Amino acid sequence: MIVAADGRVVGRGWTQSGGRPHAEAMALAQAGAAARGATAYVTLEPCAHVSPRGPACADLLAASGVARVVVALRDPDPRTDGRGIARLRDAGVEVVTGVEADAARRAMAGFLTRQRLGRPHVTLKLALSLDGAVSMADGRSQWITGAPARAHAHLERARHEAILVGRVTWEADRPRLDVRLAGLEARSPVRVVMSSRHPHPSGADAPPSLSHREREGARPAQPGGKGEGDPIWIQNPADIARLPADHLLIEGGAATAAAFLRADLVDRLLLYRAPVLIGGGRTLGDIGLADLPHAHGRWHLTDARQLGSDRLEVYEAR
Amino acid sequence: MIVAADGRVVGRGWTQSGGRPHAEAMALAQAGAAARGATAYVTLEPCAHVSPRGPACADLLAASGVARVVVALRDPDPRTDGRGIARLRDAGVEVVTGVEADAARRAMAGFLTRQRLGRPHVTLKLALSLDGAVSMADGRSQWITGAPARAHAHLERARHEAILVGRVTWEADRPRLDVRLAGLEARSPVRVVMSSRHPHPSGADAPPSLSHREREGARPAQPGGKGEGDPIWIQNPADIARLPADHLLIEGGAATAAAFLRADLVDRLLLYRAPVLIGGGRTLGDIGLADLPHAHGRWHLTDARQLGSDRLEVYEAR
Repeated sequence: MIVAADGRVVGRGWTQSGGRPHAEAMALAQAGAAARGATAYVTLEPCAHVSPRGPACADLLAASGVARVVVALRDPDPRTDGRGIARLRDAGVEVVTGVEADAARRAMAGFLTRQRLGRPHVTLKLALSLDGAVSMADGRSQWITGAPARAHAHLERARHEAILVGRVTWEADRPRLDVRLAGLEARSPVRVVMSSRHPHPSGADAPPSLSHREREGARPAQPGGKGEGDPIWIQNPADIARLPADHLLIEGGAATAAAFLRADLVDRLLLYRAPVLIGGGRTLGDIGLADLPHAHGRWHLTDARQLGSDRLEVYEAR
Repeated sequence: MIVAADGRVVGRGWTQSGGRPHAEAMALAQAGAAARGATAYVTLEPCAHVSPRGPACADLLAASGVARVVVALRDPDPRTDGRGIARLRDAGVEVVTGVEADAARRAMAGFLTRQRLGRPHVTLKLALSLDGAVSMADGRSQWITGAPARAHAHLERARHEAILVGRVTWEADRPRLDVRLAGLEARSPVRVVMSSRHPHPSGADAPPSLSHREREGARPAQPGGKGEGDPIWIQNPADIARLPADHLLIEGGAATAAAFLRADLVDRLLLYRAPVLIGGGRTLGDIGLADLPHAHGRWHLTDARQLGSDRLEVYEAR
């Protein structure tokens, strides 16, 4: 966002699907000559590398005549990683860093996790009873939570490029795993099935390697259209590194959830809890916890809200 | 409570340990001649029956000259059940009923449950992880919740005349089950152990029949002192009817909790939930739920609060 000295917003931009143009290029194009003497607010440090798809944003900003750039987060991409900020300062532009860094880290969690850990940011969703059951003993789970909680879960699907279930859930329910919210149907994620016991049945259909994605927000084209066609099959949690997604939602069942927790591959918990007792139902399996003291301090509550008679709690790993 | 026409409180009273004197007799004795023309506020309808231990409160109130009696709840005791109110009105005293009836019902839950169902009001306490585990698979549960939650649980013990655990918990932990809060040690409840597989080991030590208790708040003398000596043994949940207590707290383990839920003998849930995942731990066993729709609508959230990093939720059965 470019803000003129008199407080008027003269340009806004966001990185486009596929990773280019970057937000800075869009906002500067909108601002034109009004950028001179203005302040640019950016989430991520402007890039310092020229690509065939466009010039470096640090150079664009310096050339635009902005007086000041306010940066929330330094870009961990090794091609930038501080060099964008240095180049701006060398050009005489004032740079302020770290403003609203926590909020930016949350908004950029997918990109940052991909950069830091080479895998998508993983959210585990569980719909639970008060006693922790995700279904009755025989697998029935329709419905533990009510309509408002289920609608919220569909909104979360729309925020993820990929959604994963275990083979048992896939074969038992053939879940559509799509976004059933008016206007958001096109945001349905790529479907992924994990099966540790079998190689994926579609033979040559190995998980695609991740296409180069420079920026957050790119949504891959889906094989067979949105939420249709064959899913991507993987064999174990570590295979998620190769998924064409920076945000992965794990939706079940309990054994699949436990496998990701055991592998320490869950960044965020979405717990939808209904005010019911089930008793003797299916619960989370072994997550490799050695003793109780090790359970503490890992999960940090970041959001809680009432959804009808259910309660949503969001936890993030420290 | 007796309030004079000018708003001054001229008498207060509460029913004494053992059931007599009743609150009305105490408050009227304190008010003396100041009761004339005053308003008496009572939780429960004044009794209409004369006992060897004292006159009927309705007669005492009428004789005192109070102008008005405000009653929260009608007394379900068949010896009164509307007759106390009728006698006051016959004596020319204005009677207002139903004021703060819900709060009164909650405060009098033990007495009302004893009157209506012939058993104590039962609270089930569970300390749980996010995934519903009450312990690790091998039974370790020290500690799931933190110190503030455990202190709150001790305060709840002080509100109950009896506390029950299953035989396995009793033999594994020999829990003290007392109130470890400064100043409240003397409020430690009678200890009760349920063992379905064995008759209680102390042979002739059958559960005592309930002594006649006319009013809420009476606390029975404890065999062997507060929280010491042999516990009372019972064989199944229905035996609680004979316990010398109007408030019973069930503290574990998971199988005992499930047995009470299966028998539909739980009125209130105290859930202390810690922000930890355990995975594969012990959870509530079969509670006899036939299908998910039957799980809904039974539990109603009446209180929720943060206790350190844990959350307490209180549910009451509808």
